[in-house]
Amino acid sequence: MSSRPRGRRPGGASSRDDILDAARARFAAHGYDRTRIRDVAADAGVDAALVHYFFGTKDGLFVAAMRLPFTPAEVIGPLIAEGIDGLGERMLRRLLGVWDANQAALVGLVQAAGSHPGAGLAVREFISREIIGRVSGAVVADRPALRANLVASQIMGLLAARYIARVEPLASLPAEDIVPLVAPTLQRYLDGPL
Amino acid sequence: MSSRPRGRRPGGASSRDDILDAARARFAAHGYDRTRIRDVAADAGVDAALVHYFFGTKDGLFVAAMRLPFTPAEVIGPLIAEGIDGLGERMLRRLLGVWDANQAALVGLVQAAGSHPGAGLAVREFISREIIGRVSGAVVADRPALRANLVASQIMGLLAARYIARVEPLASLPAEDIVPLVAPTLQRYLDGPL
Repeated sequence: MSSRPRGRRPGGASSRDDILDAARARFAAHGYDRTRIRDVAADAGVDAALVHYFFGTKDGLFVAAMRLPFTPAEVIGPLIAEGIDGLGERMLRRLLGVWDANQAALVGLVQAAGSHPGAGLAVREFISREIIGRVSGAVVADRPALRANLVASQIMGLLAARYIARVEPLASLPAEDIVPLVAPTLQRYLDGPL
Repeated sequence: MSSRPRGRRPGGASSRDDILDAARARFAAHGYDRTRIRDVAADAGVDAALVHYFFGTKDGLFVAAMRLPFTPAEVIGPLIAEGIDGLGERMLRRLLGVWDANQAALVGLVQAAGSHPGAGLAVREFISREIIGRVSGAVVADRPALRANLVASQIMGLLAARYIARVEPLASLPAEDIVPLVAPTLQRYLDGPL
């Protein structure tokens, strides 16, 4: 918990910061799945309703605590809503756009997750529940969980190769040149023969 | 450099340990590419020939310093020698076999690389030079470096999903069930239309 003085008014900047401090501590200590909004609220000395008011659901709280500029629901939701046809290409284009635009924040998150075991667990559970879970729900073919795993494996590896390991030429290639190379892989995992 | 007393005889266990200590310090401080055998030898107070005698070339020294059970040359070399046909499947089967058998050592290496910036650079340069470089050399189609990047991206992501993030069902599936799912991706990257 933060040692700086807390704000009195619900909605004050200080309450908001206290909630984020408490959330970071909880996620690091307990991971994503076992962190509950009401425990974060208790740690921050506020009502759970205030946490919901500021951050919506748990994924919104996690995203704010990790200083990410968006939630997976915001990014993946609309893509999935358009159906499974061409989903591989749409996901890839959107993901590369988001990473190109928020590279520093996202690379920082990966490095933080790598160096703090607690953060690693939280990020892992968050990816599993909020990203793989959503993609899996969109698959109409057999073995949806396995297909979502395979999609995640190619996406994680592509992001790691381009933004973390920065291997060339992949790191310098414009996103639009990468999309046609990798989208067929994602689409086969989503609805092709396995 | 180690503070423990050094052995006098070339070939003594103490010289060998001094070389490994010096190598770990050099790789962490300077990365893989800029570490030279002769600097490691100088740090360890031995002749460069002794480093070559113990560890062969730089990749062998790195593998020993990182306590890996094999060098990429040993694993990838024979697979590539059999030609590009079916290379995706052969690589994948061998890689999953090696990781299944050496999971703790390899996951430990990834975590060490994630938590020490210097180790991260060394591992990244090692992967780029010794693994991507070798695969790229085996590609006869257009854009060999890009193809090797794409192969690396799918392999890194698969290993991360199965062994680090341990997403299910991918983490529990027997290796032989994963090979037919992912090998077509690798083979397309190696010699398919891009």
